[in-house]
Amino acid sequence: MKENKIHTFSENRERLDKLVMKYAGINTKRIFSIDSKSYDDGAIPAKVKELIGLIASFVLRCDDCVTYHLIQCKKYEITGEELEEALEIGLLIGGSVTIPHLRRAYEVWESLKNN
Amino acid sequence: MKENKIHTFSENRERLDKLVMKYAGINTKRIFSIDSKSYDDGAIPAKVKELIGLIASFVLRCDDCVTYHLIQCKKYEITGEELEEALEIGLLIGGSVTIPHLRRAYEVWESLKNN
Amino acid sequence: MKENKIHTFSENRERLDKLVMKYAGINTKRIFSIDSKSYDDGAIPAKVKELIGLIASFVLRCDDCVTYHLIQCKKYEITGEELEEALEIGLLIGGSVTIPHLRRAYEVWESLKNN
Amino acid sequence: MKENKIHTFSENRERLDKLVMKYAGINTKRIFSIDSKSYDDGAIPAKVKELIGLIASFVLRCDDCVTYHLIQCKKYEITGEELEEALEIGLLIGGSVTIPHLRRAYEVWESLKNN
Amino acid sequence: MKENKIHTFSENRERLDKLVMKYAGINTKRIFSIDSKSYDDGAIPAKVKELIGLIASFVLRCDDCVTYHLIQCKKYEITGEELEEALEIGLLIGGSVTIPHLRRAYEVWESLKNN
Amino acid sequence: MKENKIHTFSENRERLDKLVMKYAGINTKRIFSIDSKSYDDGAIPAKVKELIGLIASFVLRCDDCVTYHLIQCKKYEITGEELEEALEIGLLIGGSVTIPHLRRAYEVWESLKNN
Repeated sequence: MKENKIHTFSENRERLDKLVMKYAGINTKRIFSIDSKSYDDGAIPAKVKELIGLIASFVLRCDDCVTYHLIQCKKYEITGEELEEALEIGLLIGGSVTIPHLRRAYEVWESLKNN
Repeated sequence: MKENKIHTFSENRERLDKLVMKYAGINTKRIFSIDSKSYDDGAIPAKVKELIGLIASFVLRCDDCVTYHLIQCKKYEITGEELEEALEIGLLIGGSVTIPHLRRAYEVWESLKNN
Repeated sequence: MKENKIHTFSENRERLDKLVMKYAGINTKRIFSIDSKSYDDGAIPAKVKELIGLIASFVLRCDDCVTYHLIQCKKYEITGEELEEALEIGLLIGGSVTIPHLRRAYEVWESLKNN
Repeated sequence: MKENKIHTFSENRERLDKLVMKYAGINTKRIFSIDSKSYDDGAIPAKVKELIGLIASFVLRCDDCVTYHLIQCKKYEITGEELEEALEIGLLIGGSVTIPHLRRAYEVWESLKNN
Repeated sequence: MKENKIHTFSENRERLDKLVMKYAGINTKRIFSIDSKSYDDGAIPAKVKELIGLIASFVLRCDDCVTYHLIQCKKYEITGEELEEALEIGLLIGGSVTIPHLRRAYEVWESLKNN
Repeated sequence: MKENKIHTFSENRERLDKLVMKYAGINTKRIFSIDSKSYDDGAIPAKVKELIGLIASFVLRCDDCVTYHLIQCKKYEITGEELEEALEIGLLIGGSVTIPHLRRAYEVWESLKNN
C-alpha cells in the first residue's frame, strides 16, 4: 500500500462517514462520538490506547480498523519495535488465521514509514 | 458503489452460484434450497425476515451477505428510517468493528436508492 | 432451565450491572444507556427489534444475550411460530455450530412458556 | 470430565434435541437431517470427516461441538497421536484463544479413553 | 467469583495444562512456550502487554483468557481506572455482545481486589 | 480467478512474507516456522492435514488462507469429490454466511484445475 493508497483510504473513510451521518439516528451518532473519545488520554495514555485498539482490531481481523489504528500509532510515534511486539501478541492470540492481516498491516506500516 | 457495481455484484453472484452447483453434492444443494426458502412469508413477514437476515449478516461482518439483503430490503420497500434503526442495533451489538461495514452498507443503500 | 433459573439469571444480571456501574466511566455508561434505548418503538416496532436483537445475538453465539432477548420476546407476546422462524434463519446463517445454542434457547423458551 | 459427565452430556443433548424437534419447522428439521448425513462415508472416509468436523468446531471454539466430535473420533478409533496432530493444527490456526478449549478437549478425551 | 473461585480456576488450569503436556507434540509445546514469552518486558512493558492481551481476549469473548489476564493485571498493580479505560475500549470495539463478559470480568476483578 | 490471479496471489504472499520477516521478532518467526511444519506428514497424512486446514480456514472465513490451502490440496491431488465433501462440512458447520467464501473457493479451484 503506497502513500496515495493511505490517502485514498482516509479520503474514502471521510466521504463515507459523511454518508453514514446523513442517515444516522441519535444512537448511531452517539456511538461515533464515544468512538472518538475512548482513545483520549486518561489513566491510560492515548498512545497505549491506540496499541490496545490496534491489537483488538487485529484479532477481530478488521483490515480497515487496523489501517486506521496504524495511522494513529504513527502519529503517536510508536516505534517499529513496539509495533512488532504488539502484533506478535495479536498473532499469538489470534492464530495463523491472522497472518494475511499481519502481511497487510506491515504493508501499511512500511508505507507510513516512507512518508 | 454505483448502480453498475450492484449489477456487477448480482451478475457475479449468479455466475459463481452456477459454478458452485457444478460441483455441489446433495447436501450443499439442500442448504442452498433451504437458504432460498427461509426468507419466505410465514408467521414472520418476508420483509421482517430480510431485516433479521441483514442484521445477522451485519454483525457477522459479511459484506456480500449485507449487500444481498440490502437489495432484498429495497425490493420490500423498507424505508431509510427502518434501515437506520436496524443497522443501529447491529452497530450496538457488533461494536465499532462493524463501522467499516456500516459505511459500505450505506454506500450500497445510497446506490440502490438512486436507481 | 426452570423458572427459578430464569429468576436467578435476572437477579445475577442485575447484581453484576450494579458492579459494572460502580467501576464504569462515562463512555461505558453511555453504551449501557444506548443499549436500553435502541430497542424502543420507532420506525421498527419494539417487538421486531427484539427479534432482530435475538437473532444477531444468536449468530454471535452469546447465550446470556439470547436468554435476555427471549425474556423480552415473551413480554412482547412473540409466538412459538414466530420464534421458530426467526431461529431457523439464525441456524441457517450461523450454521450447525449454533445448534448447542439453539438447544439452550428452546430450553429457556420452554421454561418461560410454563410460567 | 468423568465418564458420567460424558453420559450426562449425551443424555442432555438427546433430551434437548427432542425439545428442538417439538418446535422445529421444516427448514430446521432439514438442517438437522443434513447434519447427520454430512459425516457419512464418501470420497472422504467418515473417520477423516470427524477430524475435519472436530477441528472446524475447535477453531470456532464450540465446546459442545468438540465434545460431540471427540465421542465420534473415539468410535472411529482415532488414536491419541492423530488427535494431537489435528488439535495442533487447530491451535495453530485458532491461536492461544483456543487454549482453554484445548484443555477441555483433552479432559474429555482422557475420560473417553478411560472407559 | 469469590477468592476460592480464583484459586479453583488457577488449580484447574494447572492440572489441565499437565494433561495437555502429556499429549502435546513438539509444535503444541512450542506454542505454549511462545505464549509464556510474548508477555515479557521488551520495547513494550509487561504491564502494557497484559492490558493488550486482556482486551484482545475480551473482544474475542474468552472468559478464561480474561480471568487469566486479570490475575496478571493485578500482579502488575494495574489500577481500577486503568482497567476501566481498557475495558471501555473493549466494549466499544466488541459491542454489547461483550457485556456479559464485562460483567464477569468485573466480578473477577472485585474478587481479586478483596484478597 | 484466472491462473495469473493465482500467480499474483502467490507472488504477493511471498513479497509480503519478506516484509513481515524484516520486522519479525523471535516469537513471530517461531510461529511462522511452526506454521510450515504443522502440515507435514505424521500420524495424519499431509493431504488430510491440508483438508483440515482448508475447512478450519473456511469456517473462519479467511479467503487468503482458503486460497493457500486449495493450492496445497491441488498439489496433493485431492479430487473434486473430496473437496466438495469437505466444503460441504464447512458450509454446514459455518452456515450460509460462508456462501460468499464457498463461491470464491470454487472460483480458485476451477482456475487451479485449468492449469
